[in-house]
Order: sequence, then structure tokens, then C-alpha cells
Amino acid sequence: MKTITGGTITSPKGFLAGATCGGIKTSGGLDLGILYSEVSCVAAGLFTTNRIKAAPVIWCLEHIAGGKAQAIVANAGCANACTGEQGLEDAAEMASLAAKRLGIARQDVLVASTGVIGEPLPIGLIGANMENVALSKEGGHELAQAIMTTDTYAKEVAIVAEGGEFTIGGIAKGSGMIHPNLGTLLCFLATDAAIDAHFLGKALREAVDVSFNMVTVDGDTSPNDMVLILANGMAGSINEGTKDAEDFQAVLTEVCTYLARRIAGDGEGATRLIEVTVDGALTVTDARLAARTIAGSPLVKTAVHGCDPNWGRMIAALGRSGAEIDGARVDLFLNNIRLVEGGSPHPFDEEEVRAVMGGAEVPIRVCLNLGDCAATAWGCDLSAEYVTINSEYTT
Amino acid sequence: MKTITGGTITSPKGFLAGATCGGIKTSGGLDLGILYSEVSCVAAGLFTTNRIKAAPVIWCLEHIAGGKAQAIVANAGCANACTGEQGLEDAAEMASLAAKRLGIARQDVLVASTGVIGEPLPIGLIGANMENVALSKEGGHELAQAIMTTDTYAKEVAIVAEGGEFTIGGIAKGSGMIHPNLGTLLCFLATDAAIDAHFLGKALREAVDVSFNMVTVDGDTSPNDMVLILANGMAGSINEGTKDAEDFQAVLTEVCTYLARRIAGDGEGATRLIEVTVDGALTVTDARLAARTIAGSPLVKTAVHGCDPNWGRMIAALGRSGAEIDGARVDLFLNNIRLVEGGSPHPFDEEEVRAVMGGAEVPIRVCLNLGDCAATAWGCDLSAEYVTINSEYTT
Repeated sequence: MKTITGGTITSPKGFLAGATCGGIKTSGGLDLGILYSEVSCVAAGLFTTNRIKAAPVIWCLEHIAGGKAQAIVANAGCANACTGEQGLEDAAEMASLAAKRLGIARQDVLVASTGVIGEPLPIGLIGANMENVALSKEGGHELAQAIMTTDTYAKEVAIVAEGGEFTIGGIAKGSGMIHPNLGTLLCFLATDAAIDAHFLGKALREAVDVSFNMVTVDGDTSPNDMVLILANGMAGSINEGTKDAEDFQAVLTEVCTYLARRIAGDGEGATRLIEVTVDGALTVTDARLAARTIAGSPLVKTAVHGCDPNWGRMIAALGRSGAEIDGARVDLFLNNIRLVEGGSPHPFDEEEVRAVMGGAEVPIRVCLNLGDCAATAWGCDLSAEYVTINSEYTT
Repeated sequence: MKTITGGTITSPKGFLAGATCGGIKTSGGLDLGILYSEVSCVAAGLFTTNRIKAAPVIWCLEHIAGGKAQAIVANAGCANACTGEQGLEDAAEMASLAAKRLGIARQDVLVASTGVIGEPLPIGLIGANMENVALSKEGGHELAQAIMTTDTYAKEVAIVAEGGEFTIGGIAKGSGMIHPNLGTLLCFLATDAAIDAHFLGKALREAVDVSFNMVTVDGDTSPNDMVLILANGMAGSINEGTKDAEDFQAVLTEVCTYLARRIAGDGEGATRLIEVTVDGALTVTDARLAARTIAGSPLVKTAVHGCDPNWGRMIAALGRSGAEIDGARVDLFLNNIRLVEGGSPHPFDEEEVRAVMGGAEVPIRVCLNLGDCAATAWGCDLSAEYVTINSEYTT
């Protein structure tokens, strides 16, 4: 597989996108956008596990059930969550406005919103600005920006299969309220592969499980999270159980992992990415639990922020994770430098370790020495800036 | 019941305590102390659920099994956790040193440590300073200070039963790594009631469940947490199933709740206490889950820090708590001011609410309107100071 330089969600054949400044974000900037396929798509999605589901999530759950869609309309600045019946009507109206703009049926439009919870969607602004969304092959970059909230950079990527049979492009937004099981996350994926809805859904679940579901920023999750994928079939056919299907899974997982890592690294106030790999676990569930708990521990996150090789906090987080462990068998490494051997301190060069912890990516590896299962989770350091971002204004 | 002015763990009959500066805390100050009863006590304890258990926890689990003890020796500055076989030997030696100092058997001494994980216990310092621990009826205050780490004030209280039949006193330390199921917490309780070990253990579990297990500071828990209670029987007898037993439970719960609230309010970097009450739940488990999740949400904590009435974050935390809810029935109040009615925004005076959120205690009430079960949890706001405390030096 090959990453396309400057690739984005409009890199696969037949996809157009664009965005405009709708005045929905109080900070200004792009905040209303559309992804559109020239032909009808097979569609699949994964949605927040939060019991409180935002209106656009309810809309998508209902309309993706048939496995078909042709467009996604999205806004930032208002989540349209906890907005009652009016919220549901507004989400439907947002789909209608986009459908009218695109000349397609309303039921073929998926809807996504992100931003402040509990405020009514400014549907008037959305209606007034929908016609200003100009669609183009380059518009994926604009759409990636239009879904940003406290993100500091757009997350986008496109990867083409080894033989060029198909391309998968994606954009995502993250930052706060990020935690396993789709914490405040919007991710839109597009592919020109021809693929059936059942396999597409299965492949998406598998890719998300090892990528977005392994990212933690602050333990909070949102009522708005969703990962959507549209496959328009304008390139090669993918049949389950073939080598092509394996390639498709590999590319999809790679796209999702890239975006997930970018989300972790751009956590609110983050200055560095934490990558925790747990191996030697009895089960994958144990490895996942342990990796996510360590990556999400506030005490680990602050230690990393301070470049403090305080491995005791990592071991303490491991101990409370619920994973099956034997304290006397645990090894811990920072970038291959051993800090713990068999549960006890192992001498290390503190300056060398501090230098590792000061890097843009901090790789923590914990070996449980119990079995042969492994998992990787991503998080970020916790800085005073996180507190500032989240206490100084409503996000 | 009546709170004793200036009361502490040595308020009940027959208890003495004291502490000294042993040079274990790098910051200096009291860091080595003893609680001693003039006669042998019935004892009970609750310990960390972390799979990684510090050496003193292992010592206590073994020696409290018989339901008897006469003293507790404690230090701050070093947790004696992740210290392997040497740690176990050091914990035993610490018990021996205290036993020698007190002229009692080593198996009657419980051991507690708190501080940095992964460093060997400076047993030489402890041996050299044990004789300097001077015991007195007023020494409870010193002991309360000797177990402090990043705590900014000592937590201590004593309450006497209505008719004066018995007294329960307690001290605690908390601050970071605080979360339900005994997050970095040491709490020592003493009573002059005469009570059997089985009922004492049961009463302790009940009191801790609604107090320490409802406190969250940062979601991390430590390998060292313990709540110990010694009952020396020098005052009135308590028999299970009597009015006295009810009184004992009530006083014990009150002592633990007072200390738990003090711990939450003194969370690292905290400027205010958050009290979350969830009622109208179908089950107590639901109410507890919901209250703890809201109190522990970083986004709620930062919003409270910024006096931002961002109730959407509270509802989002409720939604991910796992509690059974119906989003369309949820009401939310801040100090009796309604912000949410039936899951939708309810108009409120923002300035009035901001004033409530700026108080020393911020009462959040969520009514699920599904049943008649309730629970209360305590937490604190999340400030930049938390990050500073935990990133700038090893704690």
C-alpha cells in the first residue's frame, strides 16, 4: 500500500467535497461542509455508546440501516445534542437542505454535528449558507477543516492499494472528550472499492477496534461520535475471503490508525503522543485493557508531560486496569530502555530516559510475560493547557 | 452524635499517638508515626483492589486476618511498593522496630506507607528515628500530619455517640491517585467501643462504601490504599442488631464521610469540592455509577474550575456512565437551580449559576426520574495546579 502525498477523503474516484463559513463556530472559520459521491454508495457506520445520543447520531442510525448513502453533511460549533424533539427536526432539516443542494433524496444524506452540547442547532444559518458549499476534487481539505473544534490541525490521509485497485481516504476530528468506544470523534471515510455492505461493516468494526477504540485523551466520551464509510464502487471489486479483501482490511486499518494517532497527538493541550504497547498478555482483552488504562492515567499523562520517568505510576495504572497480571513478572520499557524487570526497579540512565520522554512520541512497552497477546493504545500528555482550554470557555 | 472540637484519632479512650521527622520525605517534616492502644484491639481493614499491592498492604492483609492488633506504624515519603522481596522484609522490619519501641508483639503491629513507588524503604532512617516517636493523648494531630504527602491540610475528626457510650476518631490522607475502591488513601480509625471483629468489619465496609468509595480525584488508584480500624473496648459494648449498633454504624459512617469530603476538597490542585447527588435511579448501583462518573469527568471538573455552567458535559458523562437512564426524563440542578428538564435545556440565570459554581462546594443534583434509589459522590475541580503538582516532580 502507498500513502498519497497530500491525500484526503476526496482522493478516491468519484468523491467531491467542500465547505463554507456558516457562522456557526463563534470563533469563525469553516464550519459547514459536504462530502458527496457522484454515484450512490454502500455505507456503514459505528456510533457512540453513550446513552445520550445526539440528534444527528439518531438520524444516521436510522438512515444507514439500509446500507446506502450518497452524501454526508457536517457542521462544527454546535453538537445538536440534548436538544429534544427540536433537535431531531433540525437534523432532518439539515439533511433536506443538503439533499436539495445536491439534487438527491433526503434519505441518502447522513448528518454529523460537533460542538457545544445543549444549544439549538442554528438551522437558519445552515440554510442560508448551504448553497455556498462549493464541491470539488480538492475540497476534502476544506471539509477536514470544517469539522474541527479545538483541534489544532486537520487530520486527513489517503492510501492506495498495492496494485492500485482501490483507494481509501479519510478525515477525522478529535481533541477533547476522546476515549475508547468513540470518544468525541467524527471520522468520515470514503473508498472507490466495490464492496458489499455486510463486509464493509465488518471491516470497519475491525479497523476501528484497533485504532479509534484504542485512543484516549481524557476519558470522556460524547453523544456525537461516529465513524462513517461510503464505498462508491467506481474502482475494483472486493469480495470477502479473497486476497483483495485482506488488502482492503489492511489499508482500512492503516487509514484509521493514522487518523487515530493524529487525534491522540492533537489531544487538547497535548505536547506529545504516548504510545503504550502491552504484550505477553493472556488475552487480547487483557492487553487492550492494560494499554488503554496506562495511556489514559492522569498521573502517567502528567509524568510524561514533565518528562519524569515515574514508572511506578505506569505499574499502578496497570494494576488497576483489571487485566490479569502477575506483579512479579512485569517488565517495563521506555523506547527499549528497561526500567522494570520482574516487577522490581531496574537501574537506568535517568537522563537518557528523560530525553526519550521529551520526544514528540513516547513509546511505553509493558511485557506481562504471561501469554502471547498484544495491543497498542494511544494517548497524550496532560498539560495545564488542557485545563485552560476546558475551563476558560464552553466547548 | 456530636463532633468533638479539635477531635482526632486519639480522642477515644486508651489511644495514644505521636510522630517524628525521620528524613523520609525529601521535603522534610513529620513522616514517621505510631498509633497505639493501651490494650489489645479488635481490628478490621479494607485494602486496595489494585493488582499491584504494596508490601505494607501485604503485611496488613496477613496480620489483620486474626481480627486483632494493638498499633499502627506509618510513614510518608516512600510507598514501599514495587519493591519485591526486599520490600516485604522492610515492611516486617518496620513492624519489628515499632513493636520493640512499644514493647508488644510484632504480629500486633499493622504497617502503612505512602509516597513514591518503586524506591526502597529507607529502613535505616526508620530504625534510627523510631525511638523519637513520643506518644501522647494529643499525638493524633502529629500522626495526621505524618501521613500527608501532597495533602495541603491534615484530615482528622472525632465524634462521640449521643449518650456518650463510645467515641470514634479518625485521620486520613488523600490528594492524588484517588478514585473509588480506595484510591491513594490511608485512613486510620480508632474507637473505644467494645465490638466483635465480624460486626466491626461489616460496619467498616458499609461506611466505606458510601464515603471513601464515592470519592474521585483523578481516576487513578494506588497499590497502598487502606482503611484500618482498631476497637479497644474501653468504653461501651456494641452488639449487632441493637440500637447501639445502629448508632455505631451512623457515627462510623459520619466519621468516614467527613474524612472523604475533606479528601475530595483537598484533591491535588483543587480549589473547590464537587458534590454530585443522583436520585430517582432504578438501583443504587446505577445511582453510584452515575454520581461517580459525573464527579470524575475531566470535562466536568474543568468546567467547574472555570465556573462554566456547561451542563452538557454533565449529561454526556451521565450518558457514558453505564447507568440505566432515559435521556428524555433527566433533570439537572445546580444548588436547586434547574438547568435541564426532561433532557432538554431549561432557562436559567447564568450569572446566578456561575456564582454557585464559584463557591467552595458545588452541589450538582441529577434526577433520573426512573425509580427511588440515590447516591452521592464527591470530587474536585481540575486546575492547572494539578498538572504542575504531578508533572514537575516525582510524587
